[in-house]
Amino acid sequence: MKVIKFGGSSLASGKQLEKVFQIVLSDPERKVVVVSAPGKRFAEDTKVTDLLIECAEQCLQNQNPTEKLEAVMERYSAIAEECHLPDGVIKDIFDDLVKRFAGDKSKPDRYIDLIKASGEDNNAKLVAAYFRERGVETTYVDPKEAGLLVSADPGNAQALPEAYERLFSLRERQGILIFPGFFGYSEEGEVFTFSRSGSDITGSILANALNADLYENFTDVDAVYSVNPSIVKKPKEIKELTYREMRELSYAGFSVLHDEALVPAFRAGIPVQIKNTNNPSAPGTRIVYERDNTNGPVIGIASDQGFCSIYVSKYLMNREIGFGRKLLGILEDFGLSYEHTPSGIDDVSVILRENQLDDKIEAAIIQRIKTELHADEVKIEHSLALIMVVGEGMRHNVGTMARASKALARTSVNIEMINQGSSEVSMMFGVKEVDEKRAVQAIYEEFFAAVTV
Amino acid sequence: MKVIKFGGSSLASGKQLEKVFQIVLSDPERKVVVVSAPGKRFAEDTKVTDLLIECAEQCLQNQNPTEKLEAVMERYSAIAEECHLPDGVIKDIFDDLVKRFAGDKSKPDRYIDLIKASGEDNNAKLVAAYFRERGVETTYVDPKEAGLLVSADPGNAQALPEAYERLFSLRERQGILIFPGFFGYSEEGEVFTFSRSGSDITGSILANALNADLYENFTDVDAVYSVNPSIVKKPKEIKELTYREMRELSYAGFSVLHDEALVPAFRAGIPVQIKNTNNPSAPGTRIVYERDNTNGPVIGIASDQGFCSIYVSKYLMNREIGFGRKLLGILEDFGLSYEHTPSGIDDVSVILRENQLDDKIEAAIIQRIKTELHADEVKIEHSLALIMVVGEGMRHNVGTMARASKALARTSVNIEMINQGSSEVSMMFGVKEVDEKRAVQAIYEEFFAAVTV
Repeated sequence: MKVIKFGGSSLASGKQLEKVFQIVLSDPERKVVVVSAPGKRFAEDTKVTDLLIECAEQCLQNQNPTEKLEAVMERYSAIAEECHLPDGVIKDIFDDLVKRFAGDKSKPDRYIDLIKASGEDNNAKLVAAYFRERGVETTYVDPKEAGLLVSADPGNAQALPEAYERLFSLRERQGILIFPGFFGYSEEGEVFTFSRSGSDITGSILANALNADLYENFTDVDAVYSVNPSIVKKPKEIKELTYREMRELSYAGFSVLHDEALVPAFRAGIPVQIKNTNNPSAPGTRIVYERDNTNGPVIGIASDQGFCSIYVSKYLMNREIGFGRKLLGILEDFGLSYEHTPSGIDDVSVILRENQLDDKIEAAIIQRIKTELHADEVKIEHSLALIMVVGEGMRHNVGTMARASKALARTSVNIEMINQGSSEVSMMFGVKEVDEKRAVQAIYEEFFAAVTV
Repeated sequence: MKVIKFGGSSLASGKQLEKVFQIVLSDPERKVVVVSAPGKRFAEDTKVTDLLIECAEQCLQNQNPTEKLEAVMERYSAIAEECHLPDGVIKDIFDDLVKRFAGDKSKPDRYIDLIKASGEDNNAKLVAAYFRERGVETTYVDPKEAGLLVSADPGNAQALPEAYERLFSLRERQGILIFPGFFGYSEEGEVFTFSRSGSDITGSILANALNADLYENFTDVDAVYSVNPSIVKKPKEIKELTYREMRELSYAGFSVLHDEALVPAFRAGIPVQIKNTNNPSAPGTRIVYERDNTNGPVIGIASDQGFCSIYVSKYLMNREIGFGRKLLGILEDFGLSYEHTPSGIDDVSVILRENQLDDKIEAAIIQRIKTELHADEVKIEHSLALIMVVGEGMRHNVGTMARASKALARTSVNIEMINQGSSEVSMMFGVKEVDEKRAVQAIYEEFFAAVTV
């Protein structure tokens, strides 16, 4: 039995719905279908979820949301018309939205979650109606009734352990089940959504809970690429990679799947298959627990800009028990999360995303580190890019670092920092943002020039 | 004006004392002479400080220390005899020791400090007597009277800020001043020693306090070597290096100078000159604030064994604000100090000296990390060696990492981890202990084969 999830662009129009229908029907193992809200039909289009958030915000400010509501309804109506669905489907969606809009506004975060979640919920009803119209036994599943219990964190809910037990009984149901992605219900029966793009998470939870053989995630790319296609033209596609590799690659350029979405599948050891709704015959990318390392040490290269480094030096720092803990504690007080902490004997740099900082926060951090930790020097360097070179094969392959760093030297990129943990599934290079593109191209050239991944 | 410090082997015999005398007299700028206790005359010899510690421990256990005391007195007597010093010198030392032995034993740590410190204190009196015998105006300086105030931490005292002001007046005194190293006095007037080999610290404090032009540290090697001579035969000598380079090299194999000893000189910007008592015409090594980078990116390679890594992995770790701080907090609870924390996205390794651990502590640490941080995996890897490749020149030299890692690859050494901070004055490689020697030799070969440092 397979759990199969379709993203927003796969459900953006009647034409797309027909593709989805064909894909689901082509394999009798495809039983549970998780759907997103209708996404973009073309580059300038607006996602239904974004329209819904605007509606919710207008309602909260006591403005009239009619215009945006009409835009939402137009999306559903266009699909229903294209698919010749009975009128009742659209009326039910409209009634549902009007009811939600009139909901309790005393907790704005929860109100937004309630409205947002309607995108997936109503789309699931619509997709189920379409499948039934085509003569296939299909049921819409209400996450509340099915038992998808989540924590009461608006916009960042987590599935509760009991949810997995309750959802298992879905296996007994007949026909195809259409399950709305992105949200669940708290123990008090209120709607809470996962973080953005959370339909991936719903699919993974269901794959785990139902002990599926495979979790198929249909999106709009043929495969996970070995490098960002905007940096290297026509990069190699990755046929198979491990959860850990996928995770390490999840720096920008590899946001095919929601980070958190791998967790439930990973814990249950269920493989995840990335496929393209618009080209279902392409083999796609399979994410597995272990893979053979037959294709060289490196499987992919991810990179992202927008990092900075907080450099702290203090003579005899490494004798001072508690220094690192106190430093990280100060950053924690500012609510900052960091990526890496490369260090010398008397200095440490904390690498973090610079969008978390502004001039005021920077000054306050420098001040606290200087006065509380008596650091000799504290300085912040901006505009860094991080490059992750990823592959399980590195572990047993002497010379990977030599090849990568030589490639950077050849193209005259100065390495600002390097961090390679003992997992050895990745190595990180910090370079100046202006050098990012050149650096990634050079590393790609070194490892992929003559290799089939 | 120069502060000049002599180590234990430079003061181990009358013959050595004569060398010291000639060295001091050969330069009229050499005014303040800091002395250690008599050290080893030959490889199997015992240092006076070690004999004194044994005495102190015997006294504390109410055993008779006569035998050890005689061994101590024999050392002083041999020197006095060789130098034809008046009998009173030895009698004064004996009386001092007897008085110290009868001291307050209620606080054993302080008692040990009191006895230990006599090695330097009495040797300073003896050296001053020798200089006077040779017709040179010379005074023994009592650190108490001179104002070397320290914190009341037995075996790990730190100079108090007031000490620097008080010591300044030593500049006014006539003649050569012989100052005992290794200890000072608390505000209550009790003796407290610095950490072992702390005479280096005394010299540095005096150089800072007296605003010396140079701090000369005479020991028994011609220079700081670019690599451990037990790993590479006849390695290049380093003529000049910065405080930061010296500090990064202070992993084993470079313990020419006490770590803490650089701090006071560094803060006052006073250069430190390492020289050889047994070969004073050798230029030695100068430690400075800044140096020209004319000799390639790498100035030295240090390495040491006996490290382990605590590897912790947890899916989505880097989203969890506070994870790193809590992990370091657990290690702090066990009183552990760590060296580096290389990391991936979902894993972090803490590198520390394994002599801090035993099976019981390891099990307790793993248990706490698993239960408190809900880590997916915690494992400890033993028998690692760290190699520090050091040089200010690396900062502006593209390709240093490529050269170093290629050298390791050529000799088939697998790099377990890499850590290069944003200071870029060093890079660290973690390798298995069995690979250490080969790895260091390969890196040395790469950077020093054809270079004069």
